[in-house]
Amino acid sequence: MNLKQYSEIMLPEIEKELQNQTARLNAPGTQLFHEMITYHMGWTGEGAGREAAGKRIRPLIVLLATASLGADWRTSLPAAAAVELVHNFSLVHDDVQDNSDKRRGRLTVWKKWGVPMAINTGDALFVLSNQAMLDLNQFHPAATVMQAASILHNTCLDLTRGQFLDMSYEERTDLSLADYKPMVGGKTSALLSACTQIGALLGNATEAEQEAYRQFGYHLGLAFQVQDDILGIWGNEALTGKSAASDLVEGKNSLPVLYALGKQQKFFKRWTQGAITNTEVKEISALLEEEGARQYAEQISKEETQIALEYLAKAQPRGTAGTSMLELANMLLKRNQ
Amino acid sequence: MNLKQYSEIMLPEIEKELQNQTARLNAPGTQLFHEMITYHMGWTGEGAGREAAGKRIRPLIVLLATASLGADWRTSLPAAAAVELVHNFSLVHDDVQDNSDKRRGRLTVWKKWGVPMAINTGDALFVLSNQAMLDLNQFHPAATVMQAASILHNTCLDLTRGQFLDMSYEERTDLSLADYKPMVGGKTSALLSACTQIGALLGNATEAEQEAYRQFGYHLGLAFQVQDDILGIWGNEALTGKSAASDLVEGKNSLPVLYALGKQQKFFKRWTQGAITNTEVKEISALLEEEGARQYAEQISKEETQIALEYLAKAQPRGTAGTSMLELANMLLKRNQ
Repeated sequence: MNLKQYSEIMLPEIEKELQNQTARLNAPGTQLFHEMITYHMGWTGEGAGREAAGKRIRPLIVLLATASLGADWRTSLPAAAAVELVHNFSLVHDDVQDNSDKRRGRLTVWKKWGVPMAINTGDALFVLSNQAMLDLNQFHPAATVMQAASILHNTCLDLTRGQFLDMSYEERTDLSLADYKPMVGGKTSALLSACTQIGALLGNATEAEQEAYRQFGYHLGLAFQVQDDILGIWGNEALTGKSAASDLVEGKNSLPVLYALGKQQKFFKRWTQGAITNTEVKEISALLEEEGARQYAEQISKEETQIALEYLAKAQPRGTAGTSMLELANMLLKRNQ
Repeated sequence: MNLKQYSEIMLPEIEKELQNQTARLNAPGTQLFHEMITYHMGWTGEGAGREAAGKRIRPLIVLLATASLGADWRTSLPAAAAVELVHNFSLVHDDVQDNSDKRRGRLTVWKKWGVPMAINTGDALFVLSNQAMLDLNQFHPAATVMQAASILHNTCLDLTRGQFLDMSYEERTDLSLADYKPMVGGKTSALLSACTQIGALLGNATEAEQEAYRQFGYHLGLAFQVQDDILGIWGNEALTGKSAASDLVEGKNSLPVLYALGKQQKFFKRWTQGAITNTEVKEISALLEEEGARQYAEQISKEETQIALEYLAKAQPRGTAGTSMLELANMLLKRNQ
């Protein structure tokens, strides 16, 4: 089996598990509440469908990790749902915090139902994630379930830390490279490392193996995020689906930006003077490249990719699930090629 | 020992546990984040102190429930912290949702640090609650910890359901008595029933005993909420610390209001025509009383108190902790006398 074949079997099972877990809210009197969840998950409302649902990469990684230890990935389905629900909880709250109108081409929950309802919808997704995780007890001993829950809780605290840093950076003018990892490490990387570690734990990995899987997920997340940062400034709009350079206009403290801020040259001067306008974007992205920010970010992306793949090799994932996980990592890391 | 003596021993231990649990955020780079938490908990910032912290009634109930089974209440401290953290997570988000400027006489978190930070602070309190609960594993078997966590997760889903109903009622004009319990049952009652049930579980109660404790908490919560509703319209400002009748101006769908709405008489006509002004408050509260709403609410409060006390008797709480829990219930239920 290759990644495509695994995806074809696993993705419908992930969707079914997510639908079962969220069905807890489908009760008389709270159907509209349930609808806010199913809309956000991409199942109902205008524009519902695959694209609206997102790629479900995180739950897929959980299942592949378990399978790559030779264990039955179906026993990890509740955990796969739990990480996807955490991811979506954070998206619903992020959209409120960032004042974003659209997500995956559709109106965001707060834009449709207002901020108070969106906060509550995010909270509910978080609770559903907690409940999903405990459903592992059908397949695993209580001590293992607790370990998996504990890994996800620690990750969630990292997520709130990363979110705090991200928001507090908006008001700072003294940022530099050193501020990147604490923020990003608490976002994409934290959740991906939880996916690989929990998947391995549920596949009965030893502690050393779990640590290798965890590190693989962490550096995969970093490499992925740095690539996303590069694409957000120099990406091809047709490939990424979002306007390249929009990250500059939005004032995102991405890796290239933080690198250049630390140099305190021309870019630093312009950035600290206020928001970049659409007409400046071309000039400013060229300036960033001139100051070495693009080259630096590409270097870091390569390094983190290398580290991620070394940890994956160390984890020794088995069989076709193992090669499919490598395939998935390569797909994620080479998406600009 | 009586309630006062138990409180004097337990409250400092609860505070210490809460401080340890929230200290997870006290790390380089996120001190301000930690400060948002400690400010909300009443420990730091202007007006810090006992009043700002609140009464910590929920964790006290957890500990008394465990002690009333003859078990060591100290082994329930992580759970006591967990329920208090859930309570405070919901307060921080409620204040955003209700647009409330003040809480316990101080500026709310969103008013001090903005809505995005307040959403994140609430999220972090929720995560800290999850982590606190798993710390029970120092004292209890993994299966018991999972049961306690599961009870709290179910309660949290009830909280989001109750919050959804509360918010959706704001736009409805067809409300009646039948809409009260689904909303209130998901708020005060849900959390109090989790406190008594978890406390009993950790005291090694049988399932039948746990159910009696749970029902006691649930009806205690209902009785307490109905009393709060009565005080919110006809209360003595000096006793309650909040302006009586303010619930009418705020348009709160309290029990007396829902009772009168169901009758579709004069009150119904006025209520459905728009917000009550401060100058009308006296007249409208008299109208409510005329239509039997006060008498009805007092009757329900009495009934629920009775049911709560019957379940407490059935639970057969032991020793001085048992009599102290009865004392606490009486204190909560007779606060207008």
